[in-house]
Amino acid sequence: MSKPSLQFWFEFASTYSYPSAMRIQRAAAADGVAVEWRPFLLGPIFSRQGWHDSPFNIYPVKGRYMWRDLERLCSEYKLPLNRPSQFPRGSVLAARVACVAQAEAWIGEFVRTMYHLNFVDDAAIGSAEVVAAALQAIGKPAQEWIERAQSPESKERLKRQTDEAAALGIFGAPSFVVDGELFWGNDRLQQALAWAKR
Amino acid sequence: MSKPSLQFWFEFASTYSYPSAMRIQRAAAADGVAVEWRPFLLGPIFSRQGWHDSPFNIYPVKGRYMWRDLERLCSEYKLPLNRPSQFPRGSVLAARVACVAQAEAWIGEFVRTMYHLNFVDDAAIGSAEVVAAALQAIGKPAQEWIERAQSPESKERLKRQTDEAAALGIFGAPSFVVDGELFWGNDRLQQALAWAKR
Repeated sequence: MSKPSLQFWFEFASTYSYPSAMRIQRAAAADGVAVEWRPFLLGPIFSRQGWHDSPFNIYPVKGRYMWRDLERLCSEYKLPLNRPSQFPRGSVLAARVACVAQAEAWIGEFVRTMYHLNFVDDAAIGSAEVVAAALQAIGKPAQEWIERAQSPESKERLKRQTDEAAALGIFGAPSFVVDGELFWGNDRLQQALAWAKR
Repeated sequence: MSKPSLQFWFEFASTYSYPSAMRIQRAAAADGVAVEWRPFLLGPIFSRQGWHDSPFNIYPVKGRYMWRDLERLCSEYKLPLNRPSQFPRGSVLAARVACVAQAEAWIGEFVRTMYHLNFVDDAAIGSAEVVAAALQAIGKPAQEWIERAQSPESKERLKRQTDEAAALGIFGAPSFVVDGELFWGNDRLQQALAWAKR
C-alpha cells in the first residue's frame, strides 16, 4: 500500500492558513501521511461569491472575532503572532514561487518562512525583495526561482491550480483534500489526517 | 469560589448548533461548568450583514460543504442526522418558549427535543403543534408555556436577548461566551469550557 497523502490548499494572505502551515508537516509526519502542497489564490475564489475584499474586512464583526480567535489559537500552539499592518496582503509572486516549487523537498521550509514574514515580521510579502530574501534565507538561488515563477507557464500554472481549487469545492483557506473529500479550516487538520489514514 | 459558567447562544434552525446542543450539558457537567442557555434569533443578526437568508443558501458552495461536514461530525459524535427538507426553518415560537424557560431545570431537555425534531424527525418546528408536542414529550403543560411564550413581555424578552447577542459581537450560532470572551462554532466548545475553568 502506498503512503497515504493529503493535499494542503493554502493562500499566503490567509490568517487561518498560518497556524496550519506551521503545524502540518510535523503533524502529517507523525501520522505517516505525505503532504501535497497546493498554493492557490483566494481572490478569484472570493470574486465568484461577489466579494472583492476579504470577508473579514467586508464583515467587520467577523473580522474582529477572527483576530481574537487567531490570537487565542496561536497562543495554544505556542506560535508567535503580530497582526499584519496590511490585510490581506497581495502575495501572487510568493504563490507562483510556491506553485513551481511545490514538489521540491524544501517547499515546507519556504512556505513557513513566508508565513513567518507576514504574520510575525509584518513584512511586505507582496514584494519581490521579500520573496527573494525568503528564498535566500533557506539557501536557494532567489533570482533563478523568481524568474522561473514569473514565466508565462508558471503564471498559467497557478491560475489552473486556482481553478482546480474551485472545482474541488474549495471556498476558503486553509482547506485539506483527501481522495476528493474536502475539509475546510485549520480546525479540520486532525480530522483530515485521520481520514487519510483510514 | 462560585462554579464557573458558560453562556450557550443557539438558534433552533442553526445546523452547527445541533451537535453543540446535544453535547453541551454532558460536556459541561464533566468539566464542572454550569450552562446558561441563551436562545436567540439569527435572522436579525444576519440582516445587519445584509443577508436575508442563511449564508449556506446564499453561497451554495459553502452550503454543500456544510451539509457534508455536518454529516461527518454527527457520525463522529454518533448523533443521528437527517437533512431537514426545509432549511432554515422558522422557529420563533420555540425560541420564545426556550427564552422564557431558559432558567428552568428542564431547559436542556426541551432544547434537545426541539433539535431532534428538526434534524432527525424533519418536523415543522415552526408550528405551535410541534412545539406543544415537544413540551408534552418532556412532561410539561404545553398550552400554559406556549401562552406564556406568546405574551408581549416574552416577545420583547427574546428581542432584547437577540440585541444582547449582537452587542456581545455574536454573528453566528452556536456561540459560547465566558466572561465576555466570545467563542464561535461547535468546534470551540471544548476551548470555551477550558476558558471557563481557568
